[in-house]
Amino acid sequence: MNSELRTSNITDTIAAIATPPGEGGIAVVRLSGKESFGIAGKIFYRDKGLAHGFDPASAESHSVHFGFIAGAGKLLDEGLLTLFKSPHSYTGEDVIEISCHGGSYIASKLLTKLIGEGARLATPGEFTKRAFLNGKLDLSQAEAVADLIRSKTESAHASSLRQLEGELSGFVKQARAELIRITSLVELELDFAEEGLEFVGKEEILKLIETLSKRIREIISTYIAGKIIREGVTLVIAGKPNSGKSSLFNKLLAQDRAIVSGIPGTTRDYLEESVVIEGVLFRLTDTAGIRTSGDEIESEGIQRSFKKIADADLTLYLIDSQTAGDDLKLELQNFSEKFSGKNSILVFSKSDLAGKAEHPDGVRVSVYDDASVNDLRKIMKAKAFEKEVNVNSSEIILTNFRHKQCLENVLASLESASRSAEEGMSGEFISVDLRSAMSHLGEITGEVTNDEILNNIFSSFCIGK
Amino acid sequence: MNSELRTSNITDTIAAIATPPGEGGIAVVRLSGKESFGIAGKIFYRDKGLAHGFDPASAESHSVHFGFIAGAGKLLDEGLLTLFKSPHSYTGEDVIEISCHGGSYIASKLLTKLIGEGARLATPGEFTKRAFLNGKLDLSQAEAVADLIRSKTESAHASSLRQLEGELSGFVKQARAELIRITSLVELELDFAEEGLEFVGKEEILKLIETLSKRIREIISTYIAGKIIREGVTLVIAGKPNSGKSSLFNKLLAQDRAIVSGIPGTTRDYLEESVVIEGVLFRLTDTAGIRTSGDEIESEGIQRSFKKIADADLTLYLIDSQTAGDDLKLELQNFSEKFSGKNSILVFSKSDLAGKAEHPDGVRVSVYDDASVNDLRKIMKAKAFEKEVNVNSSEIILTNFRHKQCLENVLASLESASRSAEEGMSGEFISVDLRSAMSHLGEITGEVTNDEILNNIFSSFCIGK
Repeated sequence: MNSELRTSNITDTIAAIATPPGEGGIAVVRLSGKESFGIAGKIFYRDKGLAHGFDPASAESHSVHFGFIAGAGKLLDEGLLTLFKSPHSYTGEDVIEISCHGGSYIASKLLTKLIGEGARLATPGEFTKRAFLNGKLDLSQAEAVADLIRSKTESAHASSLRQLEGELSGFVKQARAELIRITSLVELELDFAEEGLEFVGKEEILKLIETLSKRIREIISTYIAGKIIREGVTLVIAGKPNSGKSSLFNKLLAQDRAIVSGIPGTTRDYLEESVVIEGVLFRLTDTAGIRTSGDEIESEGIQRSFKKIADADLTLYLIDSQTAGDDLKLELQNFSEKFSGKNSILVFSKSDLAGKAEHPDGVRVSVYDDASVNDLRKIMKAKAFEKEVNVNSSEIILTNFRHKQCLENVLASLESASRSAEEGMSGEFISVDLRSAMSHLGEITGEVTNDEILNNIFSSFCIGK
Repeated sequence: MNSELRTSNITDTIAAIATPPGEGGIAVVRLSGKESFGIAGKIFYRDKGLAHGFDPASAESHSVHFGFIAGAGKLLDEGLLTLFKSPHSYTGEDVIEISCHGGSYIASKLLTKLIGEGARLATPGEFTKRAFLNGKLDLSQAEAVADLIRSKTESAHASSLRQLEGELSGFVKQARAELIRITSLVELELDFAEEGLEFVGKEEILKLIETLSKRIREIISTYIAGKIIREGVTLVIAGKPNSGKSSLFNKLLAQDRAIVSGIPGTTRDYLEESVVIEGVLFRLTDTAGIRTSGDEIESEGIQRSFKKIADADLTLYLIDSQTAGDDLKLELQNFSEKFSGKNSILVFSKSDLAGKAEHPDGVRVSVYDDASVNDLRKIMKAKAFEKEVNVNSSEIILTNFRHKQCLENVLASLESASRSAEEGMSGEFISVDLRSAMSHLGEITGEVTNDEILNNIFSSFCIGK
């Protein structure tokens, strides 16, 4: 599918409000399509008296114009109109952006007027979909746009931005080129098989496939880190009553809370607080009511809380440093039975007090000792990632489940090709597998795609992008 | 105070996010001030590799440029930079608008970078305040900007827009000109008093003052309508249990709900639903639990509900059309004792049923008869306004309490001038009063003002405007 074929059926002009809802200084309404200039010209005037119209087609691309927005002879607002001429725009089509006074009323009215003049309300992600269909972005870059908008931490932002800038696309392009080379080696041999020529040895092909497979496995292995980067780490603070859970909870939040303020919706709908620690988004689940001692442990409510802990990416298990003797033994036993393992941290809390409780795996922390809390934060970050990933390096980090699936399919096809080669099967079989691998690679960037996949991807966007 | 004096002390450059918080396709960050171009030049590049910088000063005003946003050598986003050269901008200063990917993270980071390069975080309304200080808007127009952003109905929007377009300013200018004329007549007489000349009769001066006062009183009288236009009407639906309150409540909401959806915050924090009926915003307060019959009426909870009704701008009192005999008598008596008056409507509900309850002031309504509900809506609108105001006419409608206060002060000064003239006092006294009236008029548009007033006005704005 080439981009000319793709665009041939786009004839309508879409419109949407591109800025978030709510009160703000300005709102921006966007138009894209063949009729953008004509439609905008019908509602935008040079003068308050609406006597002098404005024709965007006669203005230069990338120019901004002050004017008056009106419909049915009635003034709606003053505003700025910016025009972008095809193909030099986000979507590749003629694009108009009208910036008006903020607040939902004016922008909604303006949108209604544009629709009245012949535009169609854009579906979620439709501007970016058009950018993809017109060859301005490939599919993995388009997906990065949605992730970029949702990013709440530096690492989530950095990985989305790298994807938008084409890092994953670059790998896909390179891997496809390599696959084409291997396939042509196989197929060339096939073509000349009757003549008994052997251009390349089986060993050589196996080696090439293995090298590529290894690289793909490496990229797939970054997915866990990628998921954490994108979605954050669910963290539970557990421990007996009075072990200092709430103090630590508040301390971790108070130090870093400012960073997440201003991001609406992160905390309201759940009994959880989100906080960015060492560049990683942690979702701290409220475990008030979790008690780990005595017979209460069997009650259903407690079991539900433990289910939460089981689902959490990471648990901090708190033991009061003052605990001693049999109590300490019981607590350590409880920890090793229920929490020990890579996804938990044993914390001896209230380390400023006289207590001496210790354990080789334990971390001594006092909320009155900032250094000890900072050490804990570093350990939390390290534990969050299964393997060390430097999220600021230029290494590709896979954050998108669809991309992971595509790469797993590539890998399966490559393994099948390997097996065929090893078993001495005809080159035809190997060739089919290699072409299947190529096709799965193409799905990542959208060179191979179908409407269902596209609709799935773009429907998760916000409207106006 | 002239505009050159006003601007002389603005030396710093301000920055803020101009779009609402939350996820959206784009976010816009704004810069205004002498260093806007220099600061923007430090974070905006022509190429992804950040090798080629961009100097806004070398580009044309009102031009848009695609490029890469970076700080400390690290890419943050792709985006569009628009530049406006002084004085051809919103604030009158050099202005930069950078449009980046939506979502709070990127815009916040960008803002942080701009501040790192020497910009200062703008206070609420500071862009508009600079527009005022630089003579781009007068004070009543600046206030209209805030109202425009908050407007939720057509009439609120129309009245704010008329104010932004200078309608109130136009009246103030005209009234000041008239006052200057009257004052000069009075003062001219004063200058030549010793020579015994009389240029204009006392009667003539009184007549001029009275004409102006009448017009000002007319404008002040629109304030009640203006307040309703701006803030909406609080409406309570009252009546016995099973009188059909909930059905009517839902019917009124269901018909019009779509109009208010998309305006966050209007309904969440209160037990009220907002709905636009006939262009007026009605705030329907939940009165579930209000019972008007029997001994329950004395309980404290019920009293609190009645307090709500007393505070409401309008009450619909429902009586089931099937009510008859003594019950009906009791209900009508209850209505006339507690609700009768200009701020209530007597509704005979369930008019589709066999009931025959009637009253000269009653309106027969059935939720199954759309025509009857539409009639009720028209009556609700008419009752909402103390006097008939055609909100779409070009008449000035006062929506701002500060403007009302200024005009009342003008009126008081004019009345004092009148009294002095009538009592045959010296022209000096009359002149002082007239000059005081002029000064109060000037406060509306900001020709006469002080820092405290300015800070009060602009602090109610959102940041970024």
